[in-house]
Amino acid sequence: MNDRFLRACRREPVDRTPVWFMRQAGRYMPEYRAIRERHSLLDICRQPELAAEVTLQPVERLDVDAAILFSDLLLPLEPLGIPFDFVKGEGPVIHEPVRTADDIARLRTFEPRESLGHVLATIRLLRVELSDRVPLIGFGGAPFTLASYAVEGGPSSHYSRTKALMYGEPDSWHRLCESLSAAVADYLVAQVEAGAQAIQVFDSWVGALSPGDYREFALPHTRRVLDAVAATGVPALHFGTGTATLLEAMAEAGGDVIGVDWRVPLDDAWARIGTGRAVQGNLDPTLLLGRVDRLLAGAQDVLRRAGGQPGHIFNLGHGILPETPVSHVRTLARFVHQYG
Amino acid sequence: MNDRFLRACRREPVDRTPVWFMRQAGRYMPEYRAIRERHSLLDICRQPELAAEVTLQPVERLDVDAAILFSDLLLPLEPLGIPFDFVKGEGPVIHEPVRTADDIARLRTFEPRESLGHVLATIRLLRVELSDRVPLIGFGGAPFTLASYAVEGGPSSHYSRTKALMYGEPDSWHRLCESLSAAVADYLVAQVEAGAQAIQVFDSWVGALSPGDYREFALPHTRRVLDAVAATGVPALHFGTGTATLLEAMAEAGGDVIGVDWRVPLDDAWARIGTGRAVQGNLDPTLLLGRVDRLLAGAQDVLRRAGGQPGHIFNLGHGILPETPVSHVRTLARFVHQYG
Repeated sequence: MNDRFLRACRREPVDRTPVWFMRQAGRYMPEYRAIRERHSLLDICRQPELAAEVTLQPVERLDVDAAILFSDLLLPLEPLGIPFDFVKGEGPVIHEPVRTADDIARLRTFEPRESLGHVLATIRLLRVELSDRVPLIGFGGAPFTLASYAVEGGPSSHYSRTKALMYGEPDSWHRLCESLSAAVADYLVAQVEAGAQAIQVFDSWVGALSPGDYREFALPHTRRVLDAVAATGVPALHFGTGTATLLEAMAEAGGDVIGVDWRVPLDDAWARIGTGRAVQGNLDPTLLLGRVDRLLAGAQDVLRRAGGQPGHIFNLGHGILPETPVSHVRTLARFVHQYG
Repeated sequence: MNDRFLRACRREPVDRTPVWFMRQAGRYMPEYRAIRERHSLLDICRQPELAAEVTLQPVERLDVDAAILFSDLLLPLEPLGIPFDFVKGEGPVIHEPVRTADDIARLRTFEPRESLGHVLATIRLLRVELSDRVPLIGFGGAPFTLASYAVEGGPSSHYSRTKALMYGEPDSWHRLCESLSAAVADYLVAQVEAGAQAIQVFDSWVGALSPGDYREFALPHTRRVLDAVAATGVPALHFGTGTATLLEAMAEAGGDVIGVDWRVPLDDAWARIGTGRAVQGNLDPTLLLGRVDRLLAGAQDVLRRAGGQPGHIFNLGHGILPETPVSHVRTLARFVHQYG
């Protein structure tokens, strides 16, 4: 098996820097768009054959060292009692946002092996189809990021309702995050049992918080999730964006690998996270939209800052954007393997 | 005259920490909403009596140490040849976004004393009406932030078109920013000549850039604007959000006062900016949406980190949100004056 990715998670020496991309399966790929013409995003997530097919598309096309389960962060919200849908041009829409102590008290618990069994079936199928070519990453959302969707009702620019709840009713906030962290922890453990060989926890929007607020309102809940993953023995990757001032605290919350966006030079980030952890990142995904010479210069800068030390996984600082040329992604993956 | 604000800009000792708020005139105020029922945002900007009335509303209601001209960052786009409008629920919409070398070559130059004479008339009127109660701050947008609106056609989450231009056609990008910086520099000098006693340059969205990209694509253009303001002799305030890793470079670009959002503790920020500059900030504006005890604890933490050194101007880390209770803003301003 190509185990570069898993070795790097454990900071073991590797022959070449491993590389995979957030949203490596997605709208930038014609073969993905072909499937999306006939199926909604949630249909794909809910049908193991389709989800597995989409997961494998970038493994076939690109020289990546890991597959990541095709799924959506929000899936656990539905069995918690927070139904949602995807609306074209708007992204996720939560039909009845969670905003009061009563809303939070009404949240349910669920058994992921029943309510999200289709995700676990996808993982089992993928392990067969991948037949150890590359490892499979499972994933879930961190409590702050999931709570922000549940409270705002969708994406947000200021997280004003989320923070109003946090600051105005801290007890309710913590109860909400306890529900979310318990559900996500169970779900991720079930993913590992089904065959996921690493788990990434996405705290995509946590960069909206100050360091003090992160420690008070997010860290304890994220730690609960990451502790549960750690107990399974598979590596955990802990990712966020806009986290330049949160990196030390994110490392405290947990994760064998800390994901870093492009706003922090990787060497600075790694020094602050501590050399006892691996790091993942950190190229600006919009570099894939410009000229190849500049793209590769950016990648080279990331690799230079990683300094060839064990424990660097090359990735973008956030997901591949839909307008990205596939050829640029391929060129980038090859370059990382040649140079890194 | 209450000159606390101007003294703090120059790092001179003050009796109390000066305070003002970004968007202190705006939708959170019933008297502003009353005017907006009858007039569009652009109508208000274009009619000196209305713009002056709105500018004065927070000065009457709140114990603030500065007035800031009511206007909009985008006004210079129209005479440059980039017309726009505000669409309810969507914010600004640029009718024909600037995306090609040809679009950029077609940009016009203009004389702000003619094309934006109504803004200068507002400033002259305000200086009479304020009769030196508090100083008047004028403002403009930094080139990166203005370019992002011009290229995207409105607000953006990933700035993908902006960065695609930046990375893909760097010469075109620099030409666009040269047009913008020349126009904004002239406009801000004209504001000072009309009576603005300080100038804030808003680079609100520059936190989307890595430090390396900031230095290459934004800094030289922002410096041109800030150099022009410096030559007038009035203090310049240089503001952005998400700038945790850009603060040193922003200080290099210029500004007597560097504005800092809530993502960086103020003492850390000031140490990095250097004690030779004043700082402004940095309370999370969403604290105004929660409980007053937590709001004031947050304000106290900012003041404690400023340490009573000359050169701190209390403000939020970004503008007041529309759903903010006016009473919380009043309480905050009073608290800063008592405690600071």
